[in-house]
Parts: sequence; structure tokens; C-alpha cells
Amino acid sequence: MLSRPDVAVVGAGPVGLAIAWRCAARGLRVAVHDPAPGSGASHVAAGMLAPVAEAYFGERELTGLLTGSAARWPAFAAELTEVSGVDVGYRTEGTLMVGLTADDLAEARRLWAYQQGLGLSVTPLRPSALRDREPALAPRVRGGALAATDHQVDPRRLVRALRTAAERAGATLVPAAVRALSELDAGVTVVAAGCGAAALTGLPVRPVKGQLLRLRAPGGAAPGFRHVIRGYADGEHVYLVPRPDGEVVVGATVEERGDTDVTAGAVLRLLRAGVGLLPELAEYDLVETLAGLRPGTPDNAPILGPLPGRPGVLAATGHHRHGIVLTPVTADLIADLVETGTADPLLAPFSPARFASPAAGGPGPFVSEEEYPWN
Amino acid sequence: MLSRPDVAVVGAGPVGLAIAWRCAARGLRVAVHDPAPGSGASHVAAGMLAPVAEAYFGERELTGLLTGSAARWPAFAAELTEVSGVDVGYRTEGTLMVGLTADDLAEARRLWAYQQGLGLSVTPLRPSALRDREPALAPRVRGGALAATDHQVDPRRLVRALRTAAERAGATLVPAAVRALSELDAGVTVVAAGCGAAALTGLPVRPVKGQLLRLRAPGGAAPGFRHVIRGYADGEHVYLVPRPDGEVVVGATVEERGDTDVTAGAVLRLLRAGVGLLPELAEYDLVETLAGLRPGTPDNAPILGPLPGRPGVLAATGHHRHGIVLTPVTADLIADLVETGTADPLLAPFSPARFASPAAGGPGPFVSEEEYPWN
Repeated sequence: MLSRPDVAVVGAGPVGLAIAWRCAARGLRVAVHDPAPGSGASHVAAGMLAPVAEAYFGERELTGLLTGSAARWPAFAAELTEVSGVDVGYRTEGTLMVGLTADDLAEARRLWAYQQGLGLSVTPLRPSALRDREPALAPRVRGGALAATDHQVDPRRLVRALRTAAERAGATLVPAAVRALSELDAGVTVVAAGCGAAALTGLPVRPVKGQLLRLRAPGGAAPGFRHVIRGYADGEHVYLVPRPDGEVVVGATVEERGDTDVTAGAVLRLLRAGVGLLPELAEYDLVETLAGLRPGTPDNAPILGPLPGRPGVLAATGHHRHGIVLTPVTADLIADLVETGTADPLLAPFSPARFASPAAGGPGPFVSEEEYPWN
Repeated sequence: MLSRPDVAVVGAGPVGLAIAWRCAARGLRVAVHDPAPGSGASHVAAGMLAPVAEAYFGERELTGLLTGSAARWPAFAAELTEVSGVDVGYRTEGTLMVGLTADDLAEARRLWAYQQGLGLSVTPLRPSALRDREPALAPRVRGGALAATDHQVDPRRLVRALRTAAERAGATLVPAAVRALSELDAGVTVVAAGCGAAALTGLPVRPVKGQLLRLRAPGGAAPGFRHVIRGYADGEHVYLVPRPDGEVVVGATVEERGDTDVTAGAVLRLLRAGVGLLPELAEYDLVETLAGLRPGTPDNAPILGPLPGRPGVLAATGHHRHGIVLTPVTADLIADLVETGTADPLLAPFSPARFASPAAGGPGPFVSEEEYPWN
């Protein structure tokens, strides 16, 4: 245990570990507190780096942050692999977005037009061009588009790599839970505890349950497709992430619940949509069914920066479905903030202060329990 | 280890253990050989005692044996529970057979007419009467019938009870695999090794893969239905077996394969059919997916009795999908045969001799490898 480190990080998921790595690499003395590193949302995450496919209506500032972080990923992955010696499974085949039925395609096209309007790289493809790229797609698939710059990484490998990199840079892992920030004595405390940030800070972070499957191609083969495939299938949204070792991740539900039970209905919906888009998945082994809790926020954007009224405490949480893609930018900007005491303008839209409320009276200074009953 | 027991039983599934129990209770010295008791087909079985619902065209003699064994079940379960102190989950609510669509119902009705023609208890029910019995059935279910005498038992509890009963009667469990019958030295050897009987005897027993799911009602509740439900749903056959502790077994595929991989396609088909018949299952937890290997035979009937040309060796295998319901009659008749040396006439249609072939040249005296390449 470090005697009064410069930085105490609460949470050893990708975000917390990356902040620890960046801070330690700048010569700061860092302790990371987590009883079970990498066991949170990242353990269940698929690892899509998809700022284009995830550019939704009304989230322009978030899209900017996602795009900026995705642009940092190639150098981040290369540096991390060199420092840690761990291949993080960074793959650049791009993402195919497809629609199974005419209705699905109409819904998809509306979003693609919006994404193109933002200047993002979305290339519509005819069915024949889709099938040239991925012959395993179902004949029923009506159309699609390529997001060539939406890539992927393996989140479990990422955690291993970041942990190694952080420790090699001098950070210390403290394998214990933090029940209250008052337990910590450090120059700066960074709360990167995912859903756990709510109890520690009162921030309006709520669990958003996601259920997900891991399949495996039979006989030790690689999957019969190379792109990440994101589809609309009879009104259901599903993604299929192929990994070179034969694994295919099929995800994910988005549920306003705080349990991690795997339900028959969710597995049915995911398999039906997945097999509908890519029939050969029916022959794959079903090797894992699991559920995780994303740290959601009222505006779907992360909470990054100093906590009002809590000197020396920074938040780096609320990454919702974007924790993996946002890891590099979060780590860089929070490390800058720790080192310089000054927040980069990029952080402004994501400040914890946006949730400060004069009606506050709940567990934290930001919102009342009535407004966010899940805290 | 017993020095030269009267009876050596190979295989500690329900059939082998029940034979051991019955023989030991008659004063015979019994050894049961199995490296992993109860880990075969019974571990995956649902435990339906369904001679009526499983009375198929062209299997009249098998239906007679199933019916006779089912009639023994009430006394067998009572005696076993008394001797072992283990509740085997014997339930008598009966089985509802249902059809989801008009096509499904037409297919089902053809079979019900055949079953009624055999004098079996099949009572057609109007949709309203079906729903009076099971309000949780999907509104789409077009019709059904009650097989009041088709009951259920919990196979995992059954194995525990039989093992206790056999050991209390004096049988010895030898936790090792038998590679060849020549390893054994006993008055009589009974091969009750399921699919393993093929390698030991050359009998035409082949693995028939079955995949199956275990769900659990949420919040510790009992399932929202009491009958076993067997249904045809959009051409798919599925059964749903409720247990008082909240478990629901959803099964099962029938596949001519010898692996035990769980595939995405099978899970999809089972869930789609199950949720189609009983929509509330979508809210249940999916707690286990698994696959087992039934010992199938060319005529779907078990192989019971003396092996031609192998004095002192009896077969009790090939129970296919009927191992649980056939356990009492198999145990009684094989124990009689061991004790008296004379086969009950009930055994005649199920003799191993029916597979003896002049063209034999494979691993056993019965069939060639070309005829049964799975051996």
C-alpha cells in the first residue's frame, strides 16, 4: 500500500486502468482500488469501436467525443501492445450495417442519412456488394452500408494489457472495495467505478442491463465472416463481432434493470436476430450467456471532470455503451487534468456540473432521489 | 471390492442402479462399475413418464412395455422413497398435449387417434378447457388433449435415491471404468452402460444426441403451470416439464450425432417453441444448457436379456428416450432373469438375439461395422 499516493483511482476497468497507466507514465504515484479488476461492464462488453454506427440523433457532442477517441485508438493500441506485450485484438475490417426486411432497411437508412450529414464515413452498399464482402449473410438481407472506420478490440484482452501496462509504469493495485471516498487519502481521487460511482458520489449513474452471448465456430475454425455486423432484423437490433479464434459475440439487450440474470426471452431474441442475419450461426456452439450492467446517465453521455463542491475528486464514469471506445480519450484528458489542474475544453460538455440541481437532497449534491430512484 | 460377486453391473445410471438394488435386495452380492454414476443420459433427461404421449405408429410392443412400466411407477417410487429417504419428485398432474397452429393440431390429432385406438387414455380438450387447466398457455394454442396417466419424476433425484437404496441393500459401487467385459469376474454380468454397451458387446447401440434447457421461474416462484406440456409449435416438437422448486425443463432435440456440444440453433428452436406455447417463459432465467447422448437402437426399443454366444452376460441397454419410464420394469425383469435363469415372456420382443446377423464381422457378433458405422 502506498503512503498517500498522488492519485487514487477507484475502479480497475478499462477506464480506471488506462487513467492509472497514463498518470503513472507521467511520474505520478498511483494506487488503483478494485476487489475484482475487469469484472464489471467490460467483462461483458463486445469491444466495438463504433462512433459512426453509434452516432444517434440528438447526441452530437457525444458523437464528437466518440469520433475523437476512435481516432486515438490505432496509436493507443500500438503503444499499449508494445508496453504490455499483450495483443488486444485490435481489428480494422470495418463494420457492415444491414437491414433484414424492407422495414428494417428504412429504419437503418434514416440513421445513415443523419450520420452522413455529420460528415461521417457511411457507404451504402447494394445487396450484391454486401454479399461480395460477406457471402455468409442471409439471402433475405435487403441492404446495408459500410462504416469502414468502425473497428473492434477484445475487451478482456484490453483489461489484461492495461493492467500490465499500469503496473509496469509503477501503479499499485489495491484489491479491496472502496465503500466511501473518505477512506482514501490521496492528492487527487478519480472515481472510475462504473455503476458504483452513484453510491460514492451521488452522481446520476444508473445500471443499464445488457445480455450477450458468446458463440464459437465449430471444429476450431474461424468465423465465416470478417466484418463486425450490426443489423436490424425484424425490428430487433443485434450485433455480431467475429474474433480470429472462432469466437462470435452476439449482443446486446438494453434493459432498465439492475440484475444480472440471463433470461430465456433475451437469449431467444438475440439468437433469432443473429441467425436471421447470418444463418450459419445456428451451427455454432453456444458457449457463454451473460449479463452486465452499463453505467448509464440521463443524457447517455459520460461524466468527466471535477465534482462540484468536492475538491480533489474527479469523475470518469457514466460511459454507458461507450466505455471501450472512450478509454483512450478519457485517460488522456483525465491525466492532463490531474497533472495540470486545468480541464481541456473537450471536457466541457461532459462536466459533472451539468447534473447539479438546486433541488438536491439525495445521496449526493446533484439530484434528488425522486428524480433518480435507482440510486 | 467384492471377491467374485454374484452380479456385476456395468453402468450406474438409473437402469444399472435399479437392477443392482433389486438384485441386492434378493440377497445377491452385487458390484456396480461406473467412474461417474448418474453422469450419462439421465443427467440430461427430463423425467417424463409418458407411455401415452410417446406411443408412436409402428411401435406397439414398445408401447406395451412402456405402459406396463409406467403402471409400476407409483409403487416403485413409494418403495424407493421409503428405502432411500430421497423424494424422487414423482408428480401425477398429468400431461397436456397441445398444438399451436391448425397444422400442428392436425398432426397431433392423427397421433391422438392412433393412441386412443390402442385403448390409451387420451382426452381431447377444447381451447377453453385447456386454458381452464393452464391459463398460462398462449392464446394462439389451437387445441389439445390430456394424457392423465402420463406423469413425471426428477431423474437427478432418482439417481441419488437409487444409489442410496442399492448401497443400503448391500451393493458395492466400484468407481472405475470397464474397458472390456473380460476384466470382470462375476456369476452374471449385466451391461447397463447406455451408449457404452456398443463397445463392450458389439450391440447396435448408437448415440442419439439430445439438447435441453433448464429455466427457472423468477424470484423463487413456482412455475406458472402444473402439467407437463408437450407441444407441436410451428412444426417443432417441444416439452415443458415444471418442477415445484421453480425449475422448468425445456427439451429436447433428437440428433444423429455423438458430440455433446450445445448449439445456437438448437437453443433457438427450443426457446422459440417453448415461448410460443407458454409466453411467460420469456421472463424465466436460463440457468443451464446441456446435451446428452441417448442409447438408440435400430428399432427404437431397448435390448434386454441374454447375449447369444456370451454365457452369463445380460444386456439392459438401448433405452433411447425411455430410460426413466422403463427403469422399474427393466429392473424387475432382469433381476428375475438373474435369479431364475429364465426370461419372462415380456422380454421376448426385446431380446438381443433380434440383432444377430449372419453377416456379423464387426466389433461384436451382431452387426457389421458397415451396417452400424457409429460403433
